[in-house]
Amino acid sequence: MRTMLARINEHAAEEVEVRGWVHRIRELGKISFILLRDVSGMAQLVVDAGSSSGEVAQTASRLTLESVISARGRVAENGKAPGGFEVQVSELEVVARAEPDLPLAVNQDPDKVSLDTILEHRMISLRNPKILSVFRLQSSILELFAEHMRSEGFTEIKTSKLIGTGTEGGTGLFAVEYFDTKVFLAQSPQFYKQAMVSSGLERVFEIGCAYRAEKHETPRHLNEYVSLDVETAWIESEQDLMDLEVRILKTIFEGVERENAEVLQQWQAAVPSAEQVENIPRISHDEAKETISTLGGKKVYEVNPEGERILCDWALKEHGVEAAFIFGWPRKKRPFYTYPLDARTTMSFDLLFRGLEVTTGGRRINEYPMLLENIELFGLQPSSLSDYIQIFKYGCPPHGGFAIGLERLTQKILGLANVKEASLFPRDRRRIRP
Amino acid sequence: MRTMLARINEHAAEEVEVRGWVHRIRELGKISFILLRDVSGMAQLVVDAGSSSGEVAQTASRLTLESVISARGRVAENGKAPGGFEVQVSELEVVARAEPDLPLAVNQDPDKVSLDTILEHRMISLRNPKILSVFRLQSSILELFAEHMRSEGFTEIKTSKLIGTGTEGGTGLFAVEYFDTKVFLAQSPQFYKQAMVSSGLERVFEIGCAYRAEKHETPRHLNEYVSLDVETAWIESEQDLMDLEVRILKTIFEGVERENAEVLQQWQAAVPSAEQVENIPRISHDEAKETISTLGGKKVYEVNPEGERILCDWALKEHGVEAAFIFGWPRKKRPFYTYPLDARTTMSFDLLFRGLEVTTGGRRINEYPMLLENIELFGLQPSSLSDYIQIFKYGCPPHGGFAIGLERLTQKILGLANVKEASLFPRDRRRIRP
Repeated sequence: MRTMLARINEHAAEEVEVRGWVHRIRELGKISFILLRDVSGMAQLVVDAGSSSGEVAQTASRLTLESVISARGRVAENGKAPGGFEVQVSELEVVARAEPDLPLAVNQDPDKVSLDTILEHRMISLRNPKILSVFRLQSSILELFAEHMRSEGFTEIKTSKLIGTGTEGGTGLFAVEYFDTKVFLAQSPQFYKQAMVSSGLERVFEIGCAYRAEKHETPRHLNEYVSLDVETAWIESEQDLMDLEVRILKTIFEGVERENAEVLQQWQAAVPSAEQVENIPRISHDEAKETISTLGGKKVYEVNPEGERILCDWALKEHGVEAAFIFGWPRKKRPFYTYPLDARTTMSFDLLFRGLEVTTGGRRINEYPMLLENIELFGLQPSSLSDYIQIFKYGCPPHGGFAIGLERLTQKILGLANVKEASLFPRDRRRIRP
Repeated sequence: MRTMLARINEHAAEEVEVRGWVHRIRELGKISFILLRDVSGMAQLVVDAGSSSGEVAQTASRLTLESVISARGRVAENGKAPGGFEVQVSELEVVARAEPDLPLAVNQDPDKVSLDTILEHRMISLRNPKILSVFRLQSSILELFAEHMRSEGFTEIKTSKLIGTGTEGGTGLFAVEYFDTKVFLAQSPQFYKQAMVSSGLERVFEIGCAYRAEKHETPRHLNEYVSLDVETAWIESEQDLMDLEVRILKTIFEGVERENAEVLQQWQAAVPSAEQVENIPRISHDEAKETISTLGGKKVYEVNPEGERILCDWALKEHGVEAAFIFGWPRKKRPFYTYPLDARTTMSFDLLFRGLEVTTGGRRINEYPMLLENIELFGLQPSSLSDYIQIFKYGCPPHGGFAIGLERLTQKILGLANVKEASLFPRDRRRIRP
């Protein structure tokens, strides 16, 4: 039976079988030290050409980095070995030999390699434990998000990503050749999650891909990302949604701290405490602009990326947490389905976290006459929205929701410089592989 | 505070507030009986024009089906009311009025409506409790699948659905206009999940969309579906994978029985017991053809849809379970990455469940020289697979996996006639909305 490398300390003086990838090889006279890597961690294997069989010594001498091997041997305590134990190898088998011309060194510090090189050789760079750890943490976020939503009675939905028309007017969409016609990749499940609230489920969430055909080339944009979508009936205003997001983030941060302590340590990162999340300030869009103008030393007319950073710095200083909710966005900055508060502003919000917008949401228009009015106000064609309009024509409760960008949240938890580092196989304007 | 309709029995003789959609209205002289529907269930509201305020009676008399209302009143026991309790309304508010021209009656038996009509008016037909219940069960499957995978140490991944080339040679792919170039919608996360096994995660799963540009118009095909993907290192053969799928299905079926008893009842459906799942026979592709030929009365050369039904009937009769694993598929019927058993057959399998293939999987080639050989044998260009080939060039352990079609599994659990009934917003050759 295989012993996982992180557990060999439980088998001191016993014979074990281990398997994994050759992470590092060091020769010291007749002794080979092989650092082996598996899903659980790493451990040192020792082959002593003096005492081993000739076959084992020969196999060891020919090992290449990243080869997959299987070994048997006795576990011995060794203060100098990583983890304090090593395996003294008596049997050694190369399961899958790696060619020696690795396109990038898996065992080096990824900070020393350019992001372009890392992404170009993604199939191999993901083997680097620090790079891979990003996605262990991301897996936890997925679990914790879904777990939280279910605990509050939300139903998980899966909606089509192929749509006839855009939710925000048809710009920024990728076209798909669909048999004899053309469809688009969905920018968000917006219309569908509203339909599902009104189907009677009342509270729904979806974890799915979203697409933006935007020509950005920035450290904060992806053309394909995973959206953690939430929509719930019977809210009064966007304040209820911010309360909900606070609860979700507390679950995610607490869970990540519990389950991914090693990953956080590896990236020298920390998540906000429950108390900090509860203290996230909520300021209006007007106040936000004022604060940015004052602190930034020049008058701003919108909350731009630089402003998002200024606000998070301000929130850290004033409220002890590097995050801020901004509510009351202007109508002209929000999609047509956003519930208006007055002639100028809406019941909508953003969440900024560590200098980056990670959530956009708001109450939606649920009243049929108001929706028709707003569609006209926005210069849209009701005929192009006829399926959507049906939801409201036939009775829809007050509701709202939001979406959290999975990659942005991952990025900001770990302090990654570029959101692409938080996507397994990122897509941008130039990158469509691997 | 709102009381959910399924819980009014806990508030006998108390004043409650309830909210929901008007499911049915019945007038009996001066008394209106309103059947109200919320996420929890249904309950009867009673408005007595004799004793109610004039305002309440007037509001009640103008109600339309599917309007969203909020009501207050006293809970009273009434043996004739659904659930044995009703709310005697003292306050009544129309939150969102439904227009009276419903495109289809939400409160009718969906078996009496054509699937075309149901899908055409999907935004409204989903309000039918029986139709909606399909997706409550589907949400449970998603939860149970992920829960099981995590319990066995699998990490959840999210991979790109925009790929430069197909996994099976480039046929059956939808093209996407991607800035100045063209990409395709992924048929499966096959290459990526193999990369992630070899990244060191060893065991991964993904829940994601998959696309097939096939011109089928059958009750078993969708052009967009949700794939429950599994991939794991260190298997010996496809037998290990079938063992894993048995464990997954046991978790799903047991969980669905526990969490969705009402849905199963509504559809007069039952899931196989743990014992039945363990008894699923495993027969070779050759045996399968022979059995189909014998029982079907004519010689067959492949396992076609009719054959899948025959085999499941046979399995029910011989093994007490309407499912069968078929292993040892011919090389020419499997993709190039499938691990060959001998010159003719592969280490691959399908699972048939209630007459339908719901899973395809197998061991994959992990040996670099064998992979290069097979790519040539299949007439493929190594240059078009260069990213994929890197995984194996640099050391990949033995591994394999499979994919379960979420909609097909849902369909077969509930006995739905068409797989489209198990997709919220199905896409087929003609249907790209709503």
